[in-house]
Amino acid sequence: MTKGRVTLPAQEGMDEEIKKIVKRWGADAVRDSDGTKIPDVIKKEADKVYSKYFFTRGDQDFAKENLDELQHMFIMSEPVTATEEEITIPILAGYFKDQLKPDTDNDPKKWWQVIDRTTGEVVSTDQWEYLEETEEVKVTDAKLWHRYTVNVLVYQIWDPVHMYNHITNDWTTEHQMPYDPRYPKTRHYILERLRTWLDEHPDTDVVRITTFFYNFTLVFNDVREEKYVDWFGYGATVSPKALEAFEKEKGYKLTAEDFVDQGYYNSPFRMPKKAFLDWIDFQSKFVSELAKECVDIIHSYGKEAMMFLGDHWAGTEPYGKYFKNIGLDAVVGSVGDGTTLRMIADIPHVDYHEGRFLPYFFPDTFNEHNNPVIEANQNWLQSRRAILRKPIQRMGYGGYLSLALDFPDFVDRVEEITDEFRDMHDHVKEADPYVAPFKVAILNSWGGQRKWMSHHVHHAIWYKQCYSYYGILEALSGLPFEVEFISFEDIKADGISDDIGVIINAGEARTSWVGDDYWKDPEVVEKIRAFVQCGGGFIGVGEPTSYEHQGAFFQLPDVLGVQKEIGFSLSKDKYNDQRTPDHFILQDQHEAINYGESTRYVYQTSKSATVLDIEADDIKLATNTFGDGRAVYLAGLPYSPENARLLKRALYWAASKEDVFHEWHTTNIYTECAAYPESGTFVVINNAYEEQVTQVTKPNGMVIDVTLAPMGYQWFEI
Amino acid sequence: MTKGRVTLPAQEGMDEEIKKIVKRWGADAVRDSDGTKIPDVIKKEADKVYSKYFFTRGDQDFAKENLDELQHMFIMSEPVTATEEEITIPILAGYFKDQLKPDTDNDPKKWWQVIDRTTGEVVSTDQWEYLEETEEVKVTDAKLWHRYTVNVLVYQIWDPVHMYNHITNDWTTEHQMPYDPRYPKTRHYILERLRTWLDEHPDTDVVRITTFFYNFTLVFNDVREEKYVDWFGYGATVSPKALEAFEKEKGYKLTAEDFVDQGYYNSPFRMPKKAFLDWIDFQSKFVSELAKECVDIIHSYGKEAMMFLGDHWAGTEPYGKYFKNIGLDAVVGSVGDGTTLRMIADIPHVDYHEGRFLPYFFPDTFNEHNNPVIEANQNWLQSRRAILRKPIQRMGYGGYLSLALDFPDFVDRVEEITDEFRDMHDHVKEADPYVAPFKVAILNSWGGQRKWMSHHVHHAIWYKQCYSYYGILEALSGLPFEVEFISFEDIKADGISDDIGVIINAGEARTSWVGDDYWKDPEVVEKIRAFVQCGGGFIGVGEPTSYEHQGAFFQLPDVLGVQKEIGFSLSKDKYNDQRTPDHFILQDQHEAINYGESTRYVYQTSKSATVLDIEADDIKLATNTFGDGRAVYLAGLPYSPENARLLKRALYWAASKEDVFHEWHTTNIYTECAAYPESGTFVVINNAYEEQVTQVTKPNGMVIDVTLAPMGYQWFEI
Ligand SMILES: [Mg+2]
Ligand SMILES: [Mg+2]
Ligand SMILES: [Mg+2]
Repeated sequence: MTKGRVTLPAQEGMDEEIKKIVKRWGADAVRDSDGTKIPDVIKKEADKVYSKYFFTRGDQDFAKENLDELQHMFIMSEPVTATEEEITIPILAGYFKDQLKPDTDNDPKKWWQVIDRTTGEVVSTDQWEYLEETEEVKVTDAKLWHRYTVNVLVYQIWDPVHMYNHITNDWTTEHQMPYDPRYPKTRHYILERLRTWLDEHPDTDVVRITTFFYNFTLVFNDVREEKYVDWFGYGATVSPKALEAFEKEKGYKLTAEDFVDQGYYNSPFRMPKKAFLDWIDFQSKFVSELAKECVDIIHSYGKEAMMFLGDHWAGTEPYGKYFKNIGLDAVVGSVGDGTTLRMIADIPHVDYHEGRFLPYFFPDTFNEHNNPVIEANQNWLQSRRAILRKPIQRMGYGGYLSLALDFPDFVDRVEEITDEFRDMHDHVKEADPYVAPFKVAILNSWGGQRKWMSHHVHHAIWYKQCYSYYGILEALSGLPFEVEFISFEDIKADGISDDIGVIINAGEARTSWVGDDYWKDPEVVEKIRAFVQCGGGFIGVGEPTSYEHQGAFFQLPDVLGVQKEIGFSLSKDKYNDQRTPDHFILQDQHEAINYGESTRYVYQTSKSATVLDIEADDIKLATNTFGDGRAVYLAGLPYSPENARLLKRALYWAASKEDVFHEWHTTNIYTECAAYPESGTFVVINNAYEEQVTQVTKPNGMVIDVTLAPMGYQWFEI
Repeated sequence: MTKGRVTLPAQEGMDEEIKKIVKRWGADAVRDSDGTKIPDVIKKEADKVYSKYFFTRGDQDFAKENLDELQHMFIMSEPVTATEEEITIPILAGYFKDQLKPDTDNDPKKWWQVIDRTTGEVVSTDQWEYLEETEEVKVTDAKLWHRYTVNVLVYQIWDPVHMYNHITNDWTTEHQMPYDPRYPKTRHYILERLRTWLDEHPDTDVVRITTFFYNFTLVFNDVREEKYVDWFGYGATVSPKALEAFEKEKGYKLTAEDFVDQGYYNSPFRMPKKAFLDWIDFQSKFVSELAKECVDIIHSYGKEAMMFLGDHWAGTEPYGKYFKNIGLDAVVGSVGDGTTLRMIADIPHVDYHEGRFLPYFFPDTFNEHNNPVIEANQNWLQSRRAILRKPIQRMGYGGYLSLALDFPDFVDRVEEITDEFRDMHDHVKEADPYVAPFKVAILNSWGGQRKWMSHHVHHAIWYKQCYSYYGILEALSGLPFEVEFISFEDIKADGISDDIGVIINAGEARTSWVGDDYWKDPEVVEKIRAFVQCGGGFIGVGEPTSYEHQGAFFQLPDVLGVQKEIGFSLSKDKYNDQRTPDHFILQDQHEAINYGESTRYVYQTSKSATVLDIEADDIKLATNTFGDGRAVYLAGLPYSPENARLLKRALYWAASKEDVFHEWHTTNIYTECAAYPESGTFVVINNAYEEQVTQVTKPNGMVIDVTLAPMGYQWFEI
């Protein structure tokens, strides 16, 4: 219990301190980070040595010799309004010229596009030319007052993660340039270099691959700030070579606009288009094949291959259909909260999962103006409840250990956390936790391909437009439910599985998370109505089932019992019939519910609906019955202990399973219980920073009183 | 000054009291109301006697003898979800059966429609039948889980305004049935009856027509409450006869769905469809022709014809192209605020305009629990500033005078108001007020056909979804600007007139007020960009220029300098650069600005933009320059003295006319000044309920100090 399951970042020049920490935190593995090396003496302290490995950056000599094999990206210039018939568009205006460079090795007339954004028409290549000297495109015969953009194929001349680390830490090192293994020389080089590196690293037990070949989309602006970030993007995977291979493989040709996507760059919030899905498939296949070759080489050296989930993850989607072919031993990922914990822990086809916890040991957190214990506690509380639902097998930290050692309270707290983590595993013994007798399905356009990734722009970063929906994932990450992610195509192809008790559809109109025009697909609404009619549950949050069609905005107003006014039916009088809040769903709510950004203008349409909460005349919470089934409408659900409880109750109610709600239930909403019947154990945790008293009910009805220290926990035998 | 310009509602049985009031309020005309009669002795007190006249209701004998000539309406049944292949749809479920009755005299299979609202398909008439006994439509071979509605042609068996008055006042009289002059017997009868009535009313000077033939859409529900109301609707103008005539005249056929419009019933908030515009044109032509015949008859009796703007106004649109043909002497309308005052006062082609002020003398206001002076004051303050911009020539009240007489404070206050009204006319002497040296144009899909009618559901009624835009009209109604209402078609056909200084586009996405897909029409954006480039001003409120197209939601982000995030570009980093609020526009704002329902997720896109106000990371107020022109973005603008001032400043700034802003300007925002150079007079008014001190600047720069009593005013010589 005092040693194991923990990975420590090591660095040179502080051997004694590190040895002490290895002992206190019970680390059995050490790792290096971007910018650090592990001293030999430390390697001996650990059972396992992890070494980071970058496939497509780090060798500047190779990069410089093969500038035509650097990685690419399509970018859209800022729009220029034509005030004259001849206009010039500065193609890199607003971009960071240290990061991107127009590719003129490949013919701009072939790969670039000038688009009239007023009409959407692609401008004939006769009508424009590239002025290399000024990095401008000159358009002739422009239509006055139309807006023009240029889709430009650029080289990436700085790896974006290296750039981010470099700028954040004021490094002065050379800018690492990423090379593209689509090109034969790079491909050959990557495999050779791996072998050389493995030869040179006999002490390494685990190759920590950061990651494979293509980075998520991260673009900086002309003042060295973030301009565009999409943790799920494939913008950086393009190249003339890949595009030509795509055409051959898929039988049709993509253009720059398929990637630029009007400047939206195929954000995962967009309804995914066939071209984009085909591209993901095409690149994932390629990446998985080459990654497998690499992993096989690593294995041939008797080492483990561990992939970092993040950075160059494009093409290695862990819930995609090619991931299992790679043959990885493990994944490691950054744990930002319960949702990202689950994003890691649920990954199939690996032997174990490791979480890298926050805070990262970087000077932005570890400085005299900040107390890193606060972030550590919050990170642990949000992830702990998720680990209890789906464990990761290992934990660790990253960055400069030297920074952390200056904060003794932090060192103490991590000692407690690592002990608690091991204690958990000692009790659970790999058993599955008790879950409700029905599954919960999140329905969106991505489905199981992007588990735990909805309403998510950048890894665990708060977005005003997201948190009111992301809170659903965060609540579920630690609630006693088996959660599935299903797509509309799943429903169309296979119907709705019998073991699903409740379907959740959440988000804003038109986004992929809600599903947009899938809601006018008769097959979709037929199957969901039939599901609810036969006893299924449906929970809609925000603008669920929304697509303005045939007089309805919410396409399932009969199921939900409510509708949203979008301005076309103001002439219709609204009568909202609010009831006394003694409903099962509300029994633990003692304050006003926080719906986050919330949703306006929702009103009651069915007399069968029960309106549970109204603010400023708008319905915020309502229930409805439809046939033998039930539905709940919520205006938003940011994460909080109160809202996690609200969702738990809503799910049991929607599934008509209130009769078993009490099993392993805690009365105090700041506490939760996870039970492991096969291991004969259960734990009660305190998610709050104050002491909490709670009661736990066993399935046999027996009630136990528990008092928990701030952030505390207690294990019991069943 | 003590008599004239005022119309009093009279009733029987209180002659002495009425005489006293006639004197105190200076009434020179008396009128009856729905449910009252004018005693002969009172008629003698007045210079003019107004008699209400209903063309299409009131003679129950005629109605009963001609039930097949009752007025019609198309209604949509509530949707029924098919849980079986044979379903029955109760066609009047949720409707008030005292108001509507299915028309089976005309073949339902010909005039009705059953529609699958899941697909939008019209169900074959072979697949349904009407069960008259149960008032149900039985559909066979329904598609499981689809939603079905029936478009039903119904008779109106109760005139909706009579129904409203009846229910509001607990009348027990017979329900008046409206008859349709499209039908020859009714047409003939109407003209005959008018002559008879004129013969029988020698004392009547003014025939107060309430109104002509077809009521606005007003439908009650099964518990006698309002179900649907559209003050601008044409739902009640349909009939088989008219539809057949339409086909002949316009060359194509309309169906029930052209009126039902998916249950939106062609709300004016919808983008108007060609079929609806053609129908308005068709019915307006018919109504104006018959109305002219009636007016000619009235004139032949030496009487005046005054139309009440409201009730049966469909087809008499006062800003429509046929209105002038009717030949009316006057219009009278209900004054709810400044906007509705202008809606009346701006009407062309009549000799004079009369406003009926609030409160209406009905027991819902005049009862022991209420002080009617409050409503009278508010009504007067909001309308007074509009009268000073565009006068009505007469004022009056309506309802039961007996009720008002029980409130001596009210009688006193109306005496003051009527004196003030006459005083105004004595000073102004029909001169035009000073206005800014540029016009303001409200741009929407209706344009000049519906002046002062945008963002308006029901006459002057507050709607949560409207007030944040309606406030623009209300502010403008009393501001020193000449206001035009222009449509996108106007711009496409004629461009933008030189005298327009600022264009305002305001409202929520997709509505007719914003213009929806007009914003992807190159001609529209070309002309507006050219206008601003050359020095024009553009003010956008809410979601101006919105139509998601080619990577933009606001289609004029270059002009506005801002954009709205709708979820597709969350990956794009937003940098809003707020500036110190010392801008010309903000100089009178000392508190947080009230944007009403406001608009979320607006961010800066142009570096040239100046962000003046941000709340919770969202831009609420920003300015921009575009060429020689300027633009202002506002998140909403409910009416208040503060916001009226904000708009005034925004307009002068957008027009680049700050140099003349001070002319006839008052420093205190609760005061306003109207100047009449031709009459050599100006007035300063106090819009507040407390005393105000203000300074007025004359065009020559001379500053005058003025102190005004609560709600007071003072006239000066120039
Ligand atoms: Mg680690
Ligand atoms: Mg007169
Ligand atoms: Mg009147």
